[in-house]
Amino acid sequence: MKSKILNKGPERTIALVFEKGDDVVPILEQFAKQHTLSASRFSAIGALRAAVLGYFDWERKDYDRITVNEQVEVLSLNGDITLDGDQPKVHAHVVLGRRDGSTIGGHVLQATVQPTLEVLLIESPGYLRKTCNRETGLALIDIDA
Amino acid sequence: MKSKILNKGPERTIALVFEKGDDVVPILEQFAKQHTLSASRFSAIGALRAAVLGYFDWERKDYDRITVNEQVEVLSLNGDITLDGDQPKVHAHVVLGRRDGSTIGGHVLQATVQPTLEVLLIESPGYLRKTCNRETGLALIDIDA
Amino acid sequence: MKSKILNKGPERTIALVFEKGDDVVPILEQFAKQHTLSASRFSAIGALRAAVLGYFDWERKDYDRITVNEQVEVLSLNGDITLDGDQPKVHAHVVLGRRDGSTIGGHVLQATVQPTLEVLLIESPGYLRKTCNRETGLALIDIDA
Repeated sequence: MKSKILNKGPERTIALVFEKGDDVVPILEQFAKQHTLSASRFSAIGALRAAVLGYFDWERKDYDRITVNEQVEVLSLNGDITLDGDQPKVHAHVVLGRRDGSTIGGHVLQATVQPTLEVLLIESPGYLRKTCNRETGLALIDIDA
Repeated sequence: MKSKILNKGPERTIALVFEKGDDVVPILEQFAKQHTLSASRFSAIGALRAAVLGYFDWERKDYDRITVNEQVEVLSLNGDITLDGDQPKVHAHVVLGRRDGSTIGGHVLQATVQPTLEVLLIESPGYLRKTCNRETGLALIDIDA
Repeated sequence: MKSKILNKGPERTIALVFEKGDDVVPILEQFAKQHTLSASRFSAIGALRAAVLGYFDWERKDYDRITVNEQVEVLSLNGDITLDGDQPKVHAHVVLGRRDGSTIGGHVLQATVQPTLEVLLIESPGYLRKTCNRETGLALIDIDA
C-alpha cells in the first residue's frame, strides 16, 4: 500500500492505494498508528480476491463469519478510524459484487486486494474515542469520552 | 443521538452517534433544523433492528414500501440534507446486510438503530434548494433555485 | 447536468445534479475536462432507468457486461476522477436497488438517469495519475507517477 497527501487544510485528504495481496484492515490500522490518526473517515472502490465478512449476532453477541472465496468488485467500502484506548481502530463495512452482479456484504473482518483498492481517507483534527458498550460487549464510539 | 464537531473550516465535519432505538430520519432532520443546515452530505455505518425502505414506482409516482424486520448491518447509508422551502430535508439511500451476507436496499423511509449508527456529516457553507418536479411530484434538488 | 460550487477552500465541494436521460460517465468526464480536475472523489444517490455494469473477469482480463433494463434506485455510487495521461478519467462503482429491495452492482460502464442523480464531488488541489498495470492491462492509480 502506498499513500499520498492530496490536501493540507484543517482536514487532510490522503489517497491510499492497496496492491495485490494486501490485507486491508491490518495495513490500514498500521498506517493509522504511524500517522496518529484520531478521527478519520474513508471510502474505497476496487476489487478483492477473498474476504471474510461479519454479521453481528444479537443473541450470541459476537460476529458470524461469512467467507467469500471468489474475485469480487468492491462496490462500496465505508468506514472510520477512531481511538480504542490510545490505539487507532478501523471500523469498515463493505458491499461486494459478484460476476452476475449479485451482491454480498458485511462488517470487514478480512479483505485481500486484487488487483487494486483505491481508498480516499479524510483525517480530521479532532478525535473520537470508543468505549465498551455493556449490552453488546462491542467497543462503540462514545462522543463524551 | 449525540454529536461532536471535528473540524471548523469552510466546511465542518460533525460526528453523529445514534443509539439503540433512535429513528434516524426525524432525529437527523431535527438536528438539521437546530443547526440550520442548508447543504450537507453524510455517510454512515452501523446496524439496525428494523427499517422501512422505499422504491419509487414510476407508474404510480409514489414509493412502494419494503419492510425489514430483522437485525441488519448498515453496509452503506449515503445522503444529503438540502432546503425544501426553508426547512431542511433529509434524503438518504441505504444498503443493509442480512445474517447470510445477502443485501437489501432502498430509499430510507424509516430506520431504527441497534446498537449504534456512526454518521459523519459534512456541512458546506453554501445552500441547495429543492423544488417540486412536475413529472414525478417529487421535490428534487434545483441548482438554480 | 447542472453544477454549483458549495465550498471554496483548499478543497472545493461541487454539487452536480443530473437530469432525466443524462448518461453519467461521459457527462462527468466532460465536466472534469472543463474544470481540469486532477484528483476528485464523489458520492451520489438518485435513480436510473437503465445501466450497464462491469465485472472484471480475471482470466479474460476484461469486463463482463451486466445489463440492467429497469427503473432502479442508486443506493450508492462512489468513485474518483484521476489523470490517465493528461485526460481526467472517471472510475465509479454502484449498487442499485430493485422494486423488491434486492440489489445488483458493479463497475459503472453506462448509467442513464431518471429522474435525478445528486452527486457531491470533492476536488482536491493535488493530483493522482494512472499508469497501465502490466498484469491486468488496466489503468490503475500509481501514487509515484
